[in-house]
Amino acid sequence: MMEAKLNELKQRLMEASDLSYAGALLSWDQTTYMPPGGAEARGRQLALLGKLAHERATDPAIGKLLDALQSYGESLPYDSDDAGLIRAARRQYERDTRVPAQFIAQLYEHGAHSYQVWTAARPNNDFAAVRDNLQKTLDLSRKMADFFPGYQHLADPLIDFADYGMKAESVRELFTELREQLVPIVRAITAQPVADDSFVKQHFPKEGQLAFGEKIIRDYGFDFERGRQDLTHHPFMTKFSIGDVRITTRIQENDITDSLFSTLHEAGHAMYEQGINPAYEGTSLDGGTSAGVHESQSRLWENIVGRSRAFWEHYYPQLQAAFPGKLDNVPLDKFYRAINKVQRSLIRTDADEVTYNLHVMIRFDFELQLLEGTLEVRDLPEAWHERYDKDLGVTAPNDSDGVLQDVHWYVGIIGGSFQGYTLGNILSAQFYDTALKAHPAIPDEIGRGEFSTLHGWLRENIYQHGSKFTAPELVERVTGSPLTIEPYIRYLRGKYAELYQM
Amino acid sequence: MMEAKLNELKQRLMEASDLSYAGALLSWDQTTYMPPGGAEARGRQLALLGKLAHERATDPAIGKLLDALQSYGESLPYDSDDAGLIRAARRQYERDTRVPAQFIAQLYEHGAHSYQVWTAARPNNDFAAVRDNLQKTLDLSRKMADFFPGYQHLADPLIDFADYGMKAESVRELFTELREQLVPIVRAITAQPVADDSFVKQHFPKEGQLAFGEKIIRDYGFDFERGRQDLTHHPFMTKFSIGDVRITTRIQENDITDSLFSTLHEAGHAMYEQGINPAYEGTSLDGGTSAGVHESQSRLWENIVGRSRAFWEHYYPQLQAAFPGKLDNVPLDKFYRAINKVQRSLIRTDADEVTYNLHVMIRFDFELQLLEGTLEVRDLPEAWHERYDKDLGVTAPNDSDGVLQDVHWYVGIIGGSFQGYTLGNILSAQFYDTALKAHPAIPDEIGRGEFSTLHGWLRENIYQHGSKFTAPELVERVTGSPLTIEPYIRYLRGKYAELYQM
Repeated sequence: MMEAKLNELKQRLMEASDLSYAGALLSWDQTTYMPPGGAEARGRQLALLGKLAHERATDPAIGKLLDALQSYGESLPYDSDDAGLIRAARRQYERDTRVPAQFIAQLYEHGAHSYQVWTAARPNNDFAAVRDNLQKTLDLSRKMADFFPGYQHLADPLIDFADYGMKAESVRELFTELREQLVPIVRAITAQPVADDSFVKQHFPKEGQLAFGEKIIRDYGFDFERGRQDLTHHPFMTKFSIGDVRITTRIQENDITDSLFSTLHEAGHAMYEQGINPAYEGTSLDGGTSAGVHESQSRLWENIVGRSRAFWEHYYPQLQAAFPGKLDNVPLDKFYRAINKVQRSLIRTDADEVTYNLHVMIRFDFELQLLEGTLEVRDLPEAWHERYDKDLGVTAPNDSDGVLQDVHWYVGIIGGSFQGYTLGNILSAQFYDTALKAHPAIPDEIGRGEFSTLHGWLRENIYQHGSKFTAPELVERVTGSPLTIEPYIRYLRGKYAELYQM
Repeated sequence: MMEAKLNELKQRLMEASDLSYAGALLSWDQTTYMPPGGAEARGRQLALLGKLAHERATDPAIGKLLDALQSYGESLPYDSDDAGLIRAARRQYERDTRVPAQFIAQLYEHGAHSYQVWTAARPNNDFAAVRDNLQKTLDLSRKMADFFPGYQHLADPLIDFADYGMKAESVRELFTELREQLVPIVRAITAQPVADDSFVKQHFPKEGQLAFGEKIIRDYGFDFERGRQDLTHHPFMTKFSIGDVRITTRIQENDITDSLFSTLHEAGHAMYEQGINPAYEGTSLDGGTSAGVHESQSRLWENIVGRSRAFWEHYYPQLQAAFPGKLDNVPLDKFYRAINKVQRSLIRTDADEVTYNLHVMIRFDFELQLLEGTLEVRDLPEAWHERYDKDLGVTAPNDSDGVLQDVHWYVGIIGGSFQGYTLGNILSAQFYDTALKAHPAIPDEIGRGEFSTLHGWLRENIYQHGSKFTAPELVERVTGSPLTIEPYIRYLRGKYAELYQM
């Protein structure tokens, strides 16, 4: 009886999920291979699939099944797959059904329009062009929050979508604590001369760059039988089933680092998705559990592993050999310093791993202030410049490299969009620290280009569970403590003290 | 009032069409880029989209709208878009609703399974492995025909799906007449020595082949802003909107002709679809009007244009220059003979334009006999060998190059699958003949690599109309007479009399 209901639930979730996956493939194609003439119809087809997926996900029949399954779910061991599925499906269903389909459609429509305007406004340094859209985005974001009454801060439900269990207040406290630790590190490093990285800016042919990056992620354990990499303007990870997880990158031939680290980053996201228990396919458990945990995996493979000295002891000779005549006279130490160059800068996505979080905190604070009404949209460009001057000591010459630089507010909502990046940085170190306690030989293995112990530990402890546990549950379960910045600060201090002989 | 109903009809057709287009993209990806791990979920997602598209296309609301619009449609001028739409939508709806969704699902499921078995059986020369599936395909094909009672021959409804207006009897008469004309031509040519084409079998690098083919189809008028070409195992054309029509090819580096002519062929199909009136998008008019008319366009651009002497007077020096050292000592005449080499052969898809139809006729006759029950599935391999011996004077050493060579019966139904190829050959000459009467300078233009007059004429007279006119209507309207083999025979006689000094 319960089994029949559970199967019907899974069947219904699978249909909604397959419609979303079909839409994801249409989006992937839109950014990889679609000719320009396909754009208009593609928008229409994506809207249709989105509507059908939402209709199915919010079908009252699912609510009835969940009601019927509630006490059965609670009678199962907490860790069991079915209990986890019933909990996750309930959370998802309540979230999806509280927001009227009409509102979702309005949000998508506004987002598509706003994105179009932004793509033209950014190169033209034209904040005035996006201002009204941004105001409307803010209004819609507030409305969205209002569908989830009972919050302390308007941002709470929006943060909760991405990072379940976090609130404006808890993130604010965490970020304040982190900032206090980070600022002295940044100050100490930036008092020293900036590392020379001129040699990474030589001409590195596209094919060689792609081959080198793909060789590494194959070593990492990215499964090319269940994934692939293509070229897009902006790198991303996407998925059409647990057996088909794709990443994209872009190649800048005058810089060896841009594509390489984007490939390592997106491969981290992808390995998380490839590692989910195949039995979860199409259910509410099929996907990483939060923005922060997802980002912890991309940052772990990109930074903690991919920018470590041990890693490059193994791969640097291969890199030198792959591009003859380019790096022959650059010693490993110098290269290692270059790819870990720390400097106060304007652009979040180009920032090093030390200053990166300062960029995130600025955006997080602005999201709260905009939602609260303590900052007006029209005052945002000026506030941006002031804050960058104060926090990072740099001033953008324009809004293109200021408030117009990130796509998030121009395509989605304001609130909950950025904290996941820093939560990810923090968690990457906390998880890695735990892995090292279990397997102290991991750094040695990395130095031999071997990653199976680390990958296996992550798959076993994190990946396979998909969304069975919430992020707070998972962190506690895996590391034995709640999220804490201590391992991350220790990691940064250790690495950069050595790099800068502090 | 009628306008509102018409708009609702278009809206409903558009949703069904967009779901089909989304499915088409999933299929395209399956054969171009999908990693193996995606296969299982992809099959499930395709089945879901197919089911949803069929549900929408057969929604009784469409039937009611068509009933309400019937007399309005008849009151409009026959040539008007709305009249054509109402006629075509009615035809489509009646066809779709007569076949139960359950049966369609069964057919797809069986087709998918049968295809899998065939892909393994063909290389293993294992007819026994496919025999039971083929018998089931035959049973299902008969059932399919039975949903459309009132036929003279069981194949009639199946032929009608692909080539509206044709019946077993009319195709049989046409083919008999054509065979009487073809056989003496084949006999006369094959009495002479076979043309030397050893030089086309040299090593021609992939990139150069792709670039050369794409240069030509760009000259033809294939719009790369609204289409693209990718690589697959078997070349095909597909479409996701009138603004996004894609073709695929495969490259054999030891043969310059295989990919090149497949590109020209698929580009012909694609230019037809790209040329459809954009106002028809998503309606029953959005698509070529029949298998035969579609094939007429692929064969026209592949053969009548692409294998003509005038064409190669322009492109041969470019081909020589594109592959230095390969064809420098091969004069144009010799190359022209090589790409028009005629010989009795075993494989339909490799056959020249003279003997090609003999291959088609064998398959067409077998389809009728299988449906009638005058040929048993188990006797098919032997019948195949006998017939090839009799009609073409060749014997396959096995079934792989015999009855197992074409995918059609192993993935679709038996009946109506092959006649379109020969109808296309016939129509390609009939249409081209008419174009020449209107624009006698076309061959001179082809000799200069200019195709805009021919392409413009085809777009104006054929492409733009999509399915507004049935194939018989279109042929009559464009050429002033019903389908006739005379221009085709005249074309073959003229071309090959010169090539073989007959």
